[in-house]
Amino acid sequence: MKKIYANGTDEKAFLDELKRRSGETNKKVAETVSAIIDDVKENGDEAVKRYTLKFDGSLPEYYEVPRDVINDALNEADEELINALLNAMENIADFHNRQREQGFINAKENGVILGQRIRGLERVGLYVPGGTAAYPSSVLMNAIPAKIAGVKEIVMITPPLKDGTPNKDILVAAAVCGVDRVFLAGGAQAIAALAYGTEEIPKCDKIVGPGNIYVATAKKLLYGTVDIDMIAGPSEILVLADETADPKFAAADLMSQAEHDVLASSIMVTTSEKLADETLAEIERQMQYLSRKDIIAKSLEDYGAIIITDCRHCAVELANAIAPEHLEVLMENPFELLGSLDNAGSIFLGHYASEPLGDYYAGPNHVLPTSGTARFFSPLGVASFTKRSSYIYYTQEALAEAKDDIVLIAEREGLTAHANAIKVRFED
Amino acid sequence: MKKIYANGTDEKAFLDELKRRSGETNKKVAETVSAIIDDVKENGDEAVKRYTLKFDGSLPEYYEVPRDVINDALNEADEELINALLNAMENIADFHNRQREQGFINAKENGVILGQRIRGLERVGLYVPGGTAAYPSSVLMNAIPAKIAGVKEIVMITPPLKDGTPNKDILVAAAVCGVDRVFLAGGAQAIAALAYGTEEIPKCDKIVGPGNIYVATAKKLLYGTVDIDMIAGPSEILVLADETADPKFAAADLMSQAEHDVLASSIMVTTSEKLADETLAEIERQMQYLSRKDIIAKSLEDYGAIIITDCRHCAVELANAIAPEHLEVLMENPFELLGSLDNAGSIFLGHYASEPLGDYYAGPNHVLPTSGTARFFSPLGVASFTKRSSYIYYTQEALAEAKDDIVLIAEREGLTAHANAIKVRFED
Repeated sequence: MKKIYANGTDEKAFLDELKRRSGETNKKVAETVSAIIDDVKENGDEAVKRYTLKFDGSLPEYYEVPRDVINDALNEADEELINALLNAMENIADFHNRQREQGFINAKENGVILGQRIRGLERVGLYVPGGTAAYPSSVLMNAIPAKIAGVKEIVMITPPLKDGTPNKDILVAAAVCGVDRVFLAGGAQAIAALAYGTEEIPKCDKIVGPGNIYVATAKKLLYGTVDIDMIAGPSEILVLADETADPKFAAADLMSQAEHDVLASSIMVTTSEKLADETLAEIERQMQYLSRKDIIAKSLEDYGAIIITDCRHCAVELANAIAPEHLEVLMENPFELLGSLDNAGSIFLGHYASEPLGDYYAGPNHVLPTSGTARFFSPLGVASFTKRSSYIYYTQEALAEAKDDIVLIAEREGLTAHANAIKVRFED
Repeated sequence: MKKIYANGTDEKAFLDELKRRSGETNKKVAETVSAIIDDVKENGDEAVKRYTLKFDGSLPEYYEVPRDVINDALNEADEELINALLNAMENIADFHNRQREQGFINAKENGVILGQRIRGLERVGLYVPGGTAAYPSSVLMNAIPAKIAGVKEIVMITPPLKDGTPNKDILVAAAVCGVDRVFLAGGAQAIAALAYGTEEIPKCDKIVGPGNIYVATAKKLLYGTVDIDMIAGPSEILVLADETADPKFAAADLMSQAEHDVLASSIMVTTSEKLADETLAEIERQMQYLSRKDIIAKSLEDYGAIIITDCRHCAVELANAIAPEHLEVLMENPFELLGSLDNAGSIFLGHYASEPLGDYYAGPNHVLPTSGTARFFSPLGVASFTKRSSYIYYTQEALAEAKDDIVLIAEREGLTAHANAIKVRFED
C-alpha cells in the first residue's frame, strides 16, 4: 500500500491512476451483450435457457422457483440468521420509512388546482449475482425500499448454484422481505428478460441490483427501455483520520472494502504520519488471519493509498474531489465536518461507525454511487422506486387571464398550433 | 388520421406500430457520436470548434457569450415578452418550490444518529437546441428547478444562428432565470464538452435539455460519466374525451402536439363516436390556417388516431397501457379519474387545462417522460438537481449491541474482513 505525501503532484498522479480503474463501457463487452439482448428480445425464454446452458453448463432445477421451495428454505433456515436479518430489516425499514414522500395539491382561490402525485412503480426486477457475490444483505437493501415505495410486484432473478439449485440464503432473504417471484437465470440474458418480458418472466419497469460487467453493461444498454438503479463500479472507501484515530480500526475498515474485489479502492487521508505508519503495520498484522487476504493484498497494492496531508481542511478538499462511495471520518468532533463534505454516498461519523455497520445493519442503504458519481448520483432509496405525475386543472376564467401570455410565448416560438389551442377556447 | 374501434385487435396493431416510432439507440448514430465523444475528450476545445466548423459551416461570433451581450439582449427585449416570461416564471417557481425536500435526522435515545442530507448539484449543463427548436420556455423549465435545488452554476450551451450570433430570445430567457454562463456550440461535441470539461467549458455534474438524435445519443452514451435528465423521444398527447368534450378543443389540442415533429403522436380515446367524427372535421378545418400544417398532417397521418371505446374504464386502461407524456381528460368530473390513471407525465384535467397551458405557464415542468417511460420516469423537477448523502453515527455501546448480528451476516456472506472491522473494536 502506497504512502503518499499530499504535495499536489504525487496525490494527483495517484488519483488519475485511480480513475483509470472504472472507465467507460467496454466496447467488446457491449457488442457481446447487445447480441444477447437482441436474441432474448426476439426469442424470449428459449434464448434465456440456451444462454444458461452455454454459460452455466446445465439448466437449473427450476426456471421459476416454486413458492413452497422458498417457504421451505425459510422454515429450514437457522434461527440466528433469521433473527439477524429481521433486526437489520427493522433498522432498514425504519430509515427508509422516513424517506417516504407525499404528493401535494395547491388548490388556489381562483379555482386553479395544481399538484403532484407520487406512487410506487408497478413491477421491479431485482438481480442477485451468483457465486460468492450472492449476498442476502443485498436482497434486503433492494427489496425493502421498493416495498415501502409501494411497488406491487418484486421479481428476483439469480443464477443457480453449480448443482442447479437456488442459493438457500438468498431464498431466505427473499422470503423475509416479501419478494414475490424468483427465477433462476443470470447474466445479460436475465437483464434482457426483465426489460422486455418473456412468456414466463414478466416485464419490469425498473431493474436494480449488482452484477458483473455483462450485467452492468446490459443495464446501461437497456436504460430507457427500462429504468435502472445506477451504473455501479468497484467498491470504495475513503477514511479521513486524525491523531485520535485507532490504527487498528482504520486498518480493519480499509481492508473491509478491499476484500470485495481486486478493483476495490481503499484510501486513507490523514493529518498524522504516526497514524499512517501504525495503520500500515496493523494492515500487515490483521491481513494474515483474513480469509480473503490475497484479494485484499492485490486491491491495496493497486488502488490503495495512505495520503498524508497538512490540515483537516486539505483532507476535506481531497475527499470532495474523490467523491467516494463510503466516507469514514475517524476524527475528533466528526459532526463539525458534515456540512463541508460535499460528495459521498454514505458518511460514517466517528470511531464506532465502521463501514460494515452500514453494509448490514444501521439502516441507510448500502447501494451507493461509486467511481466519483456521488457528485450527482444518490444512494438507492424509496424515491428510486416511485414515479411522479403532475396534474393541472384550470377554470375558464383562469385560462382567460393567462391567455395573452401563453399565446405570445407560443407565437414567439413559432408554434401557432399551441397558440391556437388556447385561442380556440375563447372563440364564440 | 385513423379512426379505430377498440376491439382488442385493431388498437393493438396501432399501438404496436406506435412503439416502432421510438426504438432503441440507432447503432450507426452511436458509432458516429462515440467517435466525436472520444475526440472531444482527447482534444477539448480544438475538437469542439473543428466540429462546429464542419457541421455549422463557420465559427460563431463568440465561443463564450460575454456577459454584456447577455445583458444587452435583456435590455433590448420587448417588454411584452419579458413580462410573459416573468409571469410564467412566477408560476413555475411557485410549483417547484413545493417540491423542495428537506433532509432528516433521527437522533436516537441510545446516542445513535442516522440521517439524510440533501443538497443541490455543483454545476449543471443546459443544452438548448438550435434552429426552430430553440425555445425560451425550455430554458425556464430547466433552469428554474436547478436554481431552486441550489445548483451553484448553470452552464448553457447552444448552437449559434446561421449568421454566427446567439439566439436573442434564448439569451433573454437565460438572463431572466439566472443562467451563469453561455457557450455557443451544438451537437454531440457540446454534450461531450460539458461531460468531460475542456479548457474553456467547465465540466458539469449533470446535463439536461432536449436535442436531436446526436445530442440524445451522446447523453445516453455519457450517462454514468455524468448524470442526464432522461432519454427523450418524440412528443406525445393522449386525449381522453367523452360526449361533454368540445370537438374544437380536442382537435386544437391534438394538433398542438402534432406540430412539434412528424414523429409526434396525438391520440384521442373517446366513448363518443359523434365526438370522434366532429373532431376529425375540426382538425380538417383548423389545420388550414396553422403555419405548421404540413408537419401536423404528416404526424397525424403516421402516428395519430382516434380510438373509439365502449366505456370510461376501457379508456383509462388504454391510457395506462400507452403511458403518455401528456394526458388530457376532456371528460365530465375529471378528478374522479385521477387515482386510476397510473402512468402519465402530466395530467390535464377538464376542458380548460389545454396542453400548451402546461408547456408554458401553469407551473409544472414541461420536461416529461416520453415513449411509454412514464411507467418509470418522472417529470424533471427539483429532485433532478439534488444529490442525497446518508450519514451514520454510532456509540461504542450501540455497536456492541449490534455486533453479533453484523458479524453473523458478514461471516455468512464469506466477508471475514467485514466481520473483523467490527470485532477489532472490541478486542482489549
